[in-house]
Amino acid sequence: MNPGKDEIEMILQASQEAFMESKSYSIGKRVAMMRAIAAEIEALGPELIEAAGAESNLPEGRLTGEKGRTVFQWRSYADALERGDALDASIDTANADRTPPKPDLRKTSIPLGPVAVFGASNFPFAFSTAGGDTASAFAAGCPVVVKAHPGHPKTSTLMAEAILKGVEKGGYPKGMFAHLLSNSYETGQLLVTHPVIKAVGFTGSYQGGMALVELGNNRPDPIPVFAEMGSINPVFLLSEKLKQDPEGLASAYAGSLTLGVGQFCTNPGLVVAVDGPELTSFVAALTIQIQGSVPAPMLNEGIAKNYLHNKELVTSQDGVEVVAEATSEAAQGQGKPLVARVMGAEFLHNDHLQEEVFGPFALIVSCKDNAEMEQVASRLKGQLTSSLFGTETDLSAHEKLVSQIQVKCGRILFNNFPTGVEVVKSMHHGGPFPAASDSRFTSVGADAIKRFTRPFSYQNWPDSLLPEELKDANPLGIFRTINNERTQSPVKR
Amino acid sequence: MNPGKDEIEMILQASQEAFMESKSYSIGKRVAMMRAIAAEIEALGPELIEAAGAESNLPEGRLTGEKGRTVFQWRSYADALERGDALDASIDTANADRTPPKPDLRKTSIPLGPVAVFGASNFPFAFSTAGGDTASAFAAGCPVVVKAHPGHPKTSTLMAEAILKGVEKGGYPKGMFAHLLSNSYETGQLLVTHPVIKAVGFTGSYQGGMALVELGNNRPDPIPVFAEMGSINPVFLLSEKLKQDPEGLASAYAGSLTLGVGQFCTNPGLVVAVDGPELTSFVAALTIQIQGSVPAPMLNEGIAKNYLHNKELVTSQDGVEVVAEATSEAAQGQGKPLVARVMGAEFLHNDHLQEEVFGPFALIVSCKDNAEMEQVASRLKGQLTSSLFGTETDLSAHEKLVSQIQVKCGRILFNNFPTGVEVVKSMHHGGPFPAASDSRFTSVGADAIKRFTRPFSYQNWPDSLLPEELKDANPLGIFRTINNERTQSPVKR
Repeated sequence: MNPGKDEIEMILQASQEAFMESKSYSIGKRVAMMRAIAAEIEALGPELIEAAGAESNLPEGRLTGEKGRTVFQWRSYADALERGDALDASIDTANADRTPPKPDLRKTSIPLGPVAVFGASNFPFAFSTAGGDTASAFAAGCPVVVKAHPGHPKTSTLMAEAILKGVEKGGYPKGMFAHLLSNSYETGQLLVTHPVIKAVGFTGSYQGGMALVELGNNRPDPIPVFAEMGSINPVFLLSEKLKQDPEGLASAYAGSLTLGVGQFCTNPGLVVAVDGPELTSFVAALTIQIQGSVPAPMLNEGIAKNYLHNKELVTSQDGVEVVAEATSEAAQGQGKPLVARVMGAEFLHNDHLQEEVFGPFALIVSCKDNAEMEQVASRLKGQLTSSLFGTETDLSAHEKLVSQIQVKCGRILFNNFPTGVEVVKSMHHGGPFPAASDSRFTSVGADAIKRFTRPFSYQNWPDSLLPEELKDANPLGIFRTINNERTQSPVKR
Repeated sequence: MNPGKDEIEMILQASQEAFMESKSYSIGKRVAMMRAIAAEIEALGPELIEAAGAESNLPEGRLTGEKGRTVFQWRSYADALERGDALDASIDTANADRTPPKPDLRKTSIPLGPVAVFGASNFPFAFSTAGGDTASAFAAGCPVVVKAHPGHPKTSTLMAEAILKGVEKGGYPKGMFAHLLSNSYETGQLLVTHPVIKAVGFTGSYQGGMALVELGNNRPDPIPVFAEMGSINPVFLLSEKLKQDPEGLASAYAGSLTLGVGQFCTNPGLVVAVDGPELTSFVAALTIQIQGSVPAPMLNEGIAKNYLHNKELVTSQDGVEVVAEATSEAAQGQGKPLVARVMGAEFLHNDHLQEEVFGPFALIVSCKDNAEMEQVASRLKGQLTSSLFGTETDLSAHEKLVSQIQVKCGRILFNNFPTGVEVVKSMHHGGPFPAASDSRFTSVGADAIKRFTRPFSYQNWPDSLLPEELKDANPLGIFRTINNERTQSPVKR
C-alpha cells in the first residue's frame, strides 16, 4: 500500500516511455489491444464478482450487469476508433495557383500523453480501474496510471491484471498501464502534479474532484482535469401529467430513487412541482412507496455514515419537513430511504438544500406557481441531468421553464428517469459546473475519448510519412472531411 | 473610456437576456445573422483601413488583406454551421424490446452562454473585435462582450458598429454584442469574474493570458478561458536539405522572420540545426539578408520598447553572440531585425533562451550532433508550430526527432514557414501549454467554434420539440451520426 515517491517516479517514467514508443502505432493495433483487454475482462470469472460483492455490498446481478457494461465500453470505444469517429480527420488540399500558394493541411487527433485515473466507489467496474476513463484514455492512445479506489482494492487488482494481459497481447509496452494501491491523498497529489501526466479523469465527490482540479490548474504547465462530480438531478413534474397518474409516477420515481440504494450519480434527488391536489396525491402515493421500501447495505461504512450526516443536514434546515421514511429499521451500514419537503420560497434562499445527499434521499420542492418553479430552475446549480414529466401540452406550455432547465444540465429527459446511462455516442454524461469540471466533455460514450486527445495539423507533410488516417489513399476507409465535404473517398490529386 | 461597474452590469444583463432569448433561434437564422455581419464588415470603406493604419502602423496592403481574411472567417464559420459541422449531431434510436428498454438519445451542441473576448494588437481585424474569437462565439450561438484592445480603439469601434448592424439585420437582440473601450485591467477582471460570462477568448501575451486563466479558474464556478499566448515556433534544419540550398533557405527564412516586423504569433524565432559547414553557409547567407533588411515601425511604442528590452535580455545571456543585425539605423518605434546564436549545450540549461522576443528576432541553436538536437527538441516548451526543413530522406532518418517535436507543438510543417495561418477546418492554431491554455482547442478554423459550445443530450424528447438538427426528418439536410453511421438520411422509425 501507498507507494513511495521513487516508485511513482519509476512508474511514470515507464508511462512516458510507453507513450513515446506507442504513439506512432497504427490505429488498427490500438483497436486490437483494446479488444484484447475487453476479452480479458470478459474472461474474469466468479472471483471478480465475489471480490466486488464483498468490497461494495453490491448484489451479484447488478455486478454481472456492470461487468457486461464495462466490456461493452471497451468494445464500443474500440469500434468508434476503428470507424475514425474519435479522430475527426480532415484534409484541405493545396492550391499552388493561389497567391500566396495555399498549403496542404491535414488534421487528426493525437493522444495528450499519460493520463491519471481516479475511479469511483459506486461503480467498481464501469467507473473504476477498467472503467470509462481508462477505456477512453486508451482509445485516445494515452497510457494510464490508475490510483485504485481504496474501497475495492481486490476488485481493482483483478481488473488491473486483465488490462495488463490485454496490453501485452496487443503488443504494447507494459508501461501503458500502471495500478497504484493507495489510500493516501499524497499519492494522488504526486500523480496529478507530475510533469509526465498530461490529463486526469476523476469520478466522485465535489471536494475530491475540486482538489484535483486545483492541483491541475496550479502546475507550472496546467493540465485538464476532467472531474465528474455531484448532481441532484432535478425532476420537474408538470400539472397535466401529474393529474393523469400520480400513483404510477410515484411508483416509478421511488424505483429510480432507491435503485442501488440511491448510489448513482444520476440519482433523482430533487422533485420540483407546483403545489396543489395533484402534487398532494403524488406525495401520498410516494409516501406509501417509501415507507414500504427496504433499507439495504450501502457501498461502505463511510458512505453510510455520510448519508446519515448529509440527510440530517438537509432535514434540519428551516422549513424542511420529513414526508416519509422507510418503516423498517436500518442496520448499521444500511441506507434508509427518506423523502422530505420544502416550500419553493425557502428553497430559493437556502443553497444548503442543493447539497447532494448521496443515497436514497429526495427533497420535494413545492412551488406556489409556475413562476416560482421557473425561479427554482434558474437558481439550480449545474446538473448532469434534468427530467421533465409532462404531456406534450405541458411541455409547450412551459417553454420558458424548459429553456431555463436546459441551461443548467447536460441531458434532459422526457417522461423518463435519469438512472441508467446508455453507453452510446448520443449520450452526454457531464454538465455545467459543478456537475463536471468542464461542461464541454462527456465521461460516457465514445465522445469521452475527446477529453484525452488534441488536434494536430500537418502542413505539406509527405504522404508516405503521414499517419494512415490522413494518407491520400484513405487506407482505413474512414469518413474524413476533405475540403469541407464528408467523404470516404481517397484524396484526388 | 473605462466603463464603471454599473455600466458593465447592465451590459452583461443584456448579454444574458440576449442569450436566453436567442438560444432557441434556428440555425438558419444564426447563419444569416453571421452573413449579415460579414457583409457589414466588407462594406466598411477606407475609413477603416485609415484608422487601423494610424493605430497600428500596418501598411494598407496588409490591412486590406486582413480585412478580407476577417470577412472570410465570418462566412466560413457560418458555412460550417450551415453544414452542421459545428453541431456534431448524433442520434441513437430507441429499442423498446430490450430489457430495460433502450431510450431514444439525441445529442447536439449548444452555446455555453455569453463570452468575453480580448483582442490582440497585432491583427486589429482578424484577431480582434470582429476577429476569430467573436466570429466563432457567434457561430456557437453565444453573445459576445469585447474588451477593445487599447491600441486600436477607433478601429475597434468601427468594427463594433458593423457587428451591431449585422446583429440587428439578422433579427437578433442588440445584447448579442457589446463593445467596451477600456485600458484598465479592472474592466477585464469584472468581465471574466462575472457570473453571466461563461467562457473567455484571448490572444496576446503569456502574462495577460495567464492572468485571465487564473481569474477564470478561481471563480466559484470556474469557466474555460481559451488563451492563445506566445510561441517561438522552432525551425529545424536537417542536413541534406541544408546542403542543397543554404542561400535559398536563408532568404526564405529571413522573409518569414521579418514579415510584418516579426509581429506574428507564428513568427519563427528559433532555428535549430547541427553545426557544420552547411549551417555555416546558411548563417553566412542569413547574415547578408538580415544586414540588408530594413527596420520598420512596430505596432506601437510599447511593443517597440519591449522588443528592445527582450532582445537585450536574450543576447545578454551567457554564450549568446550576435550574428547579424540590420545595418540601417532604426528610428524610435521601429523594430530592427537581429539574429543571434548559441550552442546547444548552453540552450539546454537556460530557459531564458526560450522567452519569446516579439519582433524580428531569431536565435540559432547550434547543436553538436543529432542527439543534442533531439535533446533541444525535448527541452522545448509547448509551441503553436514547428517547422522541419529536410529531404524525405532527412525526415526518415530523424524519426525520433520528429516524434519529439510533435509532442511539443500543434502544427508541424515540412519545408514551409509557419507565418500565414490558413482559415480551414484542417488548421490547428493552438498547441501544448504555454502556446495555448488548452491544447484541445484551436482559435483558427471552424473548429474554433467548439471552444464555445457544449454537448447536450435529449432523452425520449418529442420530435416536434427537438431542435431542427435532431428532428427525424433532418430538415437541415446535414450529416448526422445515426446509430453510429454517418448519414444525411432521415431517421427511419
